[in-house]
Amino acid sequence: MLAAKVIDNIWATRKAESLVGLKFMLVEVLGGVDAGRLIIAVDTIGAGFGERVLVCTGSSARRMLGRDDVPVDAAIVGIIDEDCLF
Amino acid sequence: MLAAKVIDNIWATRKAESLVGLKFMLVEVLGGVDAGRLIIAVDTIGAGFGERVLVCTGSSARRMLGRDDVPVDAAIVGIIDEDCLF
Amino acid sequence: MLAAKVIDNIWATRKAESLVGLKFMLVEVLGGVDAGRLIIAVDTIGAGFGERVLVCTGSSARRMLGRDDVPVDAAIVGIIDEDCLF
Amino acid sequence: MLAAKVIDNIWATRKAESLVGLKFMLVEVLGGVDAGRLIIAVDTIGAGFGERVLVCTGSSARRMLGRDDVPVDAAIVGIIDEDCLF
Amino acid sequence: MLAAKVIDNIWATRKAESLVGLKFMLVEVLGGVDAGRLIIAVDTIGAGFGERVLVCTGSSARRMLGRDDVPVDAAIVGIIDEDCLF
Repeated sequence: MLAAKVIDNIWATRKAESLVGLKFMLVEVLGGVDAGRLIIAVDTIGAGFGERVLVCTGSSARRMLGRDDVPVDAAIVGIIDEDCLF
Repeated sequence: MLAAKVIDNIWATRKAESLVGLKFMLVEVLGGVDAGRLIIAVDTIGAGFGERVLVCTGSSARRMLGRDDVPVDAAIVGIIDEDCLF
Repeated sequence: MLAAKVIDNIWATRKAESLVGLKFMLVEVLGGVDAGRLIIAVDTIGAGFGERVLVCTGSSARRMLGRDDVPVDAAIVGIIDEDCLF
Repeated sequence: MLAAKVIDNIWATRKAESLVGLKFMLVEVLGGVDAGRLIIAVDTIGAGFGERVLVCTGSSARRMLGRDDVPVDAAIVGIIDEDCLF
Repeated sequence: MLAAKVIDNIWATRKAESLVGLKFMLVEVLGGVDAGRLIIAVDTIGAGFGERVLVCTGSSARRMLGRDDVPVDAAIVGIIDEDCLF
């Protein structure tokens, strides 16, 4: 997983039918040589702007949705505790 | 997913039989440290040149086509709303 | 797999239900042009801070957990021997 | 997929039994920030040196071979038309 | 696949049970913009130090082991012929 910060919502009215109802967030990878990489991740946890999150990518991201038929390759799977320093 | 801009069509007359009839678009990744990365993605949504799209990669891209037997690793899964600023 | 050094714990109280009980470690990739890349990996082996570990990524990381339904894309699969120089 | 140029053959007499009979080509990624990345891809289409090809990577590359048991992570899936400018 | 050079053994006494008996090699990616990237790959072919090998990554690497339950994301699948210049 990657540590990332939620920086914005992404709105896409025209999209795959299987994606309707999902919330898309723009997240920015934190730390290390990948810092600043932007990913659009599905959020089912309710992350807020500025929160640090765990982002899971690839086929594993579909596991977050509990179904295997959605074209999703990144999902927020956890919110890093505020007092977790790293 | 990645945010990208549609910049061109890609034509390939000789290709895998399972790809016949699919539309290939050249997209350029937007923002972050991956900005400028080029990907060729299948489009089933009808994205136009200059539009900003959500691109799904890896095995999840095959979910966009509703079949698992196609050699496709990138697909446009949504079109970002024009008034979505990020 | 990647060689990486364990540098910290990651705490996420709010997370996917399937992740409850798993230990998350921040690891830093060692050597080569990826040196300094940060990954958050699940640890089921009991790696300690400062230890060098083998990190497996992608769908293969789920094999470390013996179940395929968890949204995990990185796992510590081994601890590199202290006297293994490279 | 990636756009790449075929630049050489790769010969490997000692290899996995399931790879016997497959043709391996060295391709160089074209354009964008990945330009110059080298990939060894299986070719079942008959691409020639200097031709621009579509390369599919990851699990989707196995779909090109119509079997799921081969250790192949990159395959040429199409040849870009000569008059396709991008 | 990637072309890489075998540069060392990696020893990990504590590891996943399913990895016991496998040989791990440190390989360095050759050529292109990824040159110098280090990967730890399972070797079942008997590659020697200094040899140039084909490395398969991701889920396809598990195909080299003939089983799908091992947490392995990179495997040596062939040895590039000595007289193959590229």
